[in-house]
Amino acid sequence: MGNVSPFAPKHLPHLAAIDGVRIATAASGIRYPGRTDLLFVLFDPGTAVAGVLTQSKTASAPVDWCRAHLHQGMARALVVNSGNANAFTGRRGREAVELTAKAAAKAAKCQEADIYIASTGVIGEPLDARKIASRLGELAGEAKGDAYEDAARAIITTDTYPKLATRKAEIDGVEITINGIAKGAGMIAPDMATMLAFIFTDAAIEPAALHEVTAPLVEDSLNAITIDGDTSTSDTLLIFATGAAARRGAPRIARGDDPRLVGFRAGLAAVLRDLALQIVKDGEGATKFVTVKVMGAKTKQAARAIAKSIANSPLVKTAIAGEDPNWGRIVAAVGKAGEEADRDRLAIWLGEIQVAKDGEVASSYREQAGAAYMKNREIAISVDVGVGKAASTVWTCDLTKDYIAINADYRS
Amino acid sequence: MGNVSPFAPKHLPHLAAIDGVRIATAASGIRYPGRTDLLFVLFDPGTAVAGVLTQSKTASAPVDWCRAHLHQGMARALVVNSGNANAFTGRRGREAVELTAKAAAKAAKCQEADIYIASTGVIGEPLDARKIASRLGELAGEAKGDAYEDAARAIITTDTYPKLATRKAEIDGVEITINGIAKGAGMIAPDMATMLAFIFTDAAIEPAALHEVTAPLVEDSLNAITIDGDTSTSDTLLIFATGAAARRGAPRIARGDDPRLVGFRAGLAAVLRDLALQIVKDGEGATKFVTVKVMGAKTKQAARAIAKSIANSPLVKTAIAGEDPNWGRIVAAVGKAGEEADRDRLAIWLGEIQVAKDGEVASSYREQAGAAYMKNREIAISVDVGVGKAASTVWTCDLTKDYIAINADYRS
Repeated sequence: MGNVSPFAPKHLPHLAAIDGVRIATAASGIRYPGRTDLLFVLFDPGTAVAGVLTQSKTASAPVDWCRAHLHQGMARALVVNSGNANAFTGRRGREAVELTAKAAAKAAKCQEADIYIASTGVIGEPLDARKIASRLGELAGEAKGDAYEDAARAIITTDTYPKLATRKAEIDGVEITINGIAKGAGMIAPDMATMLAFIFTDAAIEPAALHEVTAPLVEDSLNAITIDGDTSTSDTLLIFATGAAARRGAPRIARGDDPRLVGFRAGLAAVLRDLALQIVKDGEGATKFVTVKVMGAKTKQAARAIAKSIANSPLVKTAIAGEDPNWGRIVAAVGKAGEEADRDRLAIWLGEIQVAKDGEVASSYREQAGAAYMKNREIAISVDVGVGKAASTVWTCDLTKDYIAINADYRS
Repeated sequence: MGNVSPFAPKHLPHLAAIDGVRIATAASGIRYPGRTDLLFVLFDPGTAVAGVLTQSKTASAPVDWCRAHLHQGMARALVVNSGNANAFTGRRGREAVELTAKAAAKAAKCQEADIYIASTGVIGEPLDARKIASRLGELAGEAKGDAYEDAARAIITTDTYPKLATRKAEIDGVEITINGIAKGAGMIAPDMATMLAFIFTDAAIEPAALHEVTAPLVEDSLNAITIDGDTSTSDTLLIFATGAAARRGAPRIARGDDPRLVGFRAGLAAVLRDLALQIVKDGEGATKFVTVKVMGAKTKQAARAIAKSIANSPLVKTAIAGEDPNWGRIVAAVGKAGEEADRDRLAIWLGEIQVAKDGEVASSYREQAGAAYMKNREIAISVDVGVGKAASTVWTCDLTKDYIAINADYRS
């Protein structure tokens, strides 16, 4: 524990202030002594919000709150705490959310329905929301525009580095900014794991359009990563668009298919992808970053299922940790995915090295070449399953003894 | 590596000879130096066979062979090797199986269609079947009735102990014997993992009836265990019934629903359950044996899916390894299963200790009690998901650093 991921960025990107977004953080003592664990973000009136929330059947109280309010589409503040997920906390969990919303609404001078809330950390322990509520008034006074790094630090749990990404894009010739922060580390998996991601932009996009643009991009970014196949109760992606760029002449976009969104869509996709890969690279105990691409499947869904079967296989992941080009385990993972694949046309590559062809080891393959390749820090596994034309890519990391150490000791 | 499971039996059971079954083993040098890796079992004419094979889309060549011949229902010999799975070996794999069948048929003086074959070990490396074929004639001469322990030792790979089970049962007042051997260890998961199990009995049961009796029993034994969620290319259960008990007056059973099979069914269920639990208890790196029971589900399939979601969760399994009563991870695993569950009626027990009730921590629960319970070697997790009356139980083990060590180093 305590080792920083070998993929930690040497320099954190600088995220410029966005008109209409003010940020403050505090050490509220929810769980972690001596570090910030509370994020309060205030938005100017008129800020649109859209989101994608966990599909878990045991979703947390804050997720329930967001789901109940997202259809309104407007936001005035975001409250995030780390250290306690406020999940599976029953009536007390709902009360904690209500107390937080009430205090945040007072501090932001808005309605409670305009407050968005997320929590991450231990599941099942009651969250003492008074620690949060009592700080929000003071934080509203301190909030400032250029505190994204503080924000990213306040929301992490077992992450070894804060996750920030930023891109510029143009909408109808007007430059807008897209800033993102995220936390990940453990429990990252399909269907949005204990993953929190918050995106902020000054673009002027109405809520429905914002959702239309954002939701499909999640599929090939945050939903395409997996660390341990576990999915959390708390996964939350929220995107806030202040509309401040309209004052600089940006159009107000009402439809997700508006052609003027092409640049914004690309910028948002890049921010989401950037954050997703940062999350994988900080997977608990990770020493290898792994790209799994499956081609030749009948449908994109089938390709995704096979890729996830490979990426989630403990035997594949431990082989990668051991730098063992054990492609037989890749074959087994393809087989167990339950999707159509032609065993006798299967082809596998490690990087550029073709390992298997037509359902058996490639005649050109040499074990030494595979073994040398596996020493790389970034590993690419490509598989052609030989039954169609669809492809999908997922990203994962290896499974190491440190993953066990971190997770066997997490609460103690 | 090399540590024997803490669950290894102190004494192996003695399996009595069964009329019509003769066993021989050899060290053929396929992979492991200095240990037996080849099992040859010969059956008297008239022996019925039934089986359940892996659902993997990348099944091994021996599985293909068995699937092609099982419908004939009669067997004269079984050839099993460890060290090489002969999976994903293409044309050469098929040729290796054909060579083995040919040599076995010659040694057993029967048709090739009466030969059954299974292989376990590394995937993707060509199997040199000449090492097998050249030994079978000699083994046929040496084969004897009471060599089940030798048989169980010859088929294991990373198992730390041989797996044997035996029961007596009566059919219409005549005592019959049911012997079983199995191998497991890694890659054990739903849908029959690199699990090989072979059952031998002197009961006189026709092939179709034998299949009808056996297949449903697999669901709550071998298919109810999971070590790492991985499913192999090679899983094979075969049951051989010599019919020798007919000479002692046992009836010849032609239908799976014959009421005279009640005792046999119970005995076979016990042998399959016994072998399945031995496999879990020898899970790679296992230090805890875990029973996961899910109740209150809509259907048995839903209960099974939720139980497997818990049993396969790396976060649950590492918490158990760390003796951490981290029931929040159980909640998350219920949530991600995708099956109907009522979060606000969810109840969880660790052994007899109620941890959660009505969707939050039980007021009677004390963390110290949970922590003390987790120090047990055998852990029972029970969950009531509060939406119906169906239940299912699965068995698993914890996920430890030794699992990583064993699997990161397996081929090197």
